[in-house]
Amino acid sequence: MKDEFSFIKSIIPNHIQQQSLRIGIGDDAAVYESDSSVDQVVCVDTMVEGIHFRKDTMEPVQIGRKALAINISDLAAMGATPRFYLTTIAVPPTWTEDHLREIYRGMSELGKQFKMDLIGGDTVSIEQSLVITVTAIGTVASGSAIKRTSARKDDIVFVTGPIGGSAAGFDLLNERTKDGHFSSNELSYVKMHQEPMPQVELGELFSQSNQRMSLNDISDGLSSEIFEIAVASNVQVILNKAHIVKLSPQLDVSLEKRVKWSLNGGEDFQLVGTTSAEQYEVLQKQAKAIGFSLFPVGVVREGKPAVFLDDGDKELPLEMGGYNHFKRG
Amino acid sequence: MKDEFSFIKSIIPNHIQQQSLRIGIGDDAAVYESDSSVDQVVCVDTMVEGIHFRKDTMEPVQIGRKALAINISDLAAMGATPRFYLTTIAVPPTWTEDHLREIYRGMSELGKQFKMDLIGGDTVSIEQSLVITVTAIGTVASGSAIKRTSARKDDIVFVTGPIGGSAAGFDLLNERTKDGHFSSNELSYVKMHQEPMPQVELGELFSQSNQRMSLNDISDGLSSEIFEIAVASNVQVILNKAHIVKLSPQLDVSLEKRVKWSLNGGEDFQLVGTTSAEQYEVLQKQAKAIGFSLFPVGVVREGKPAVFLDDGDKELPLEMGGYNHFKRG
Repeated sequence: MKDEFSFIKSIIPNHIQQQSLRIGIGDDAAVYESDSSVDQVVCVDTMVEGIHFRKDTMEPVQIGRKALAINISDLAAMGATPRFYLTTIAVPPTWTEDHLREIYRGMSELGKQFKMDLIGGDTVSIEQSLVITVTAIGTVASGSAIKRTSARKDDIVFVTGPIGGSAAGFDLLNERTKDGHFSSNELSYVKMHQEPMPQVELGELFSQSNQRMSLNDISDGLSSEIFEIAVASNVQVILNKAHIVKLSPQLDVSLEKRVKWSLNGGEDFQLVGTTSAEQYEVLQKQAKAIGFSLFPVGVVREGKPAVFLDDGDKELPLEMGGYNHFKRG
Repeated sequence: MKDEFSFIKSIIPNHIQQQSLRIGIGDDAAVYESDSSVDQVVCVDTMVEGIHFRKDTMEPVQIGRKALAINISDLAAMGATPRFYLTTIAVPPTWTEDHLREIYRGMSELGKQFKMDLIGGDTVSIEQSLVITVTAIGTVASGSAIKRTSARKDDIVFVTGPIGGSAAGFDLLNERTKDGHFSSNELSYVKMHQEPMPQVELGELFSQSNQRMSLNDISDGLSSEIFEIAVASNVQVILNKAHIVKLSPQLDVSLEKRVKWSLNGGEDFQLVGTTSAEQYEVLQKQAKAIGFSLFPVGVVREGKPAVFLDDGDKELPLEMGGYNHFKRG
């Protein structure tokens, strides 16, 4: 990089969106006001080149976007409203300053959609692989964050949209690269992989409802996410295969593959939750009123934590194939 | 790593120190209470193997410790009290699970000293270099964070302890590795590199004093840190060479080398600040009352932002050799 100083200047936001921000980029740390009506919600995720993304399947602008989206999705899974983010990037010599600008542009564009301010970070050198870490901060009404521990017997298990689309898109990209030719139907799945949209509005709706529910975001595949809820809540979940098929990628591949994408694919950034049948009806109406929808995919029952797939005839125990190794929090 | 699940369990703190924490590690994001009497202070820093640390100069436990120390030092430079941290590590195959445990132990031990809770993170794979990113969160009384913009004509420029020790220690380590033989005097500098101590108590004292002052932590060398203050405050700083020599490493090398370590070395994690002569006397007394000391190293005057070294005869303009490339915030 020829001129770090002008680069840094170029990524500093020229106006802020969050009025609570007192000190943004440019001092040792960022400072913002807080108050007792809200709890602070914070998460962090790291994406590594070659592990979580590749230059041949995603544009730099999409890589930046996704690094922030992953974290916004974690905030949404707590019912929080996104406020701020901080970004550190370790840049190898194979990435140009233009690439880097594009990464920041991707974050900035998505951040703006949710009125988030970039308030800090660090840009360092590395020999080989690009590494992006984003820390995201949000707020939720005091005591209203939605945990994984609240699933109860007879709850309806629901998701907030199609699942497995990101995995299907990745399969297509892996086969043809980002410069390949795709039909418009295929392209919709490619975009689900490259530009997934976190479900902030629904997360906010859920936390504002102040009803008992459990919630997770689908970053590691439906089966592993619902398994986390089952473990945290000490219940069993039975997923309905027919329902999942309807939400799975509508591509001309085997049914088995489509279901596998939906169960283990991950990175859809839809939410998966459980709540009582009565509350589900209420939430469904509220979701539709703001242009969203909930989709039932299973039920909760008592028993040692486990997840089963009901194919109409029998219940198959699901192995946690999508379970994200190393992942905490 | 053979068993990620048990590893993750092993690094989850078994009790919390901050009573405001509602949800720690184990959900999509951490959640803690806030109130309007304090501002939130947040920063993030990344350390890359081969760039910021090496296995032959630092033990894994010291690498972990330092990754947190860097961030605590940034909080201290705002006058904040540390509260929480989140850690992401990208681990190459050359690092064992035992190494990783040691890294977390180093963070945990330093975190405990400042009653900080580990509340989230991510552990991922990488091909080549280990990368650690720590996000640290603190609080400061509402409106009391100390900025870089408040230096004024005739201020005294002070530091909170010896400077250049970390650079001297790194020189020794670079020459002999961490397993080399060192005199006890040499070892004290080696330790300043391997186990630097952020100046949290003094930062808190400064913000509680509620007096006009500017403050920075010495992570990139005194000359670059005071230059940041000079630019942010639109003033000139004249550093006194004789004073700096007294604070520089007491090793049998050229005076020139000692001064260079002090001016450009960095990673000392002492604080550098400016305040009026009257207020300096008050703060000095308060610092001594809690077992610390301030050391004058220069003065502030009007003029186009610049830093000079006064050697008794003349003023030499300092080039910003220690200026940290790529660094923001």
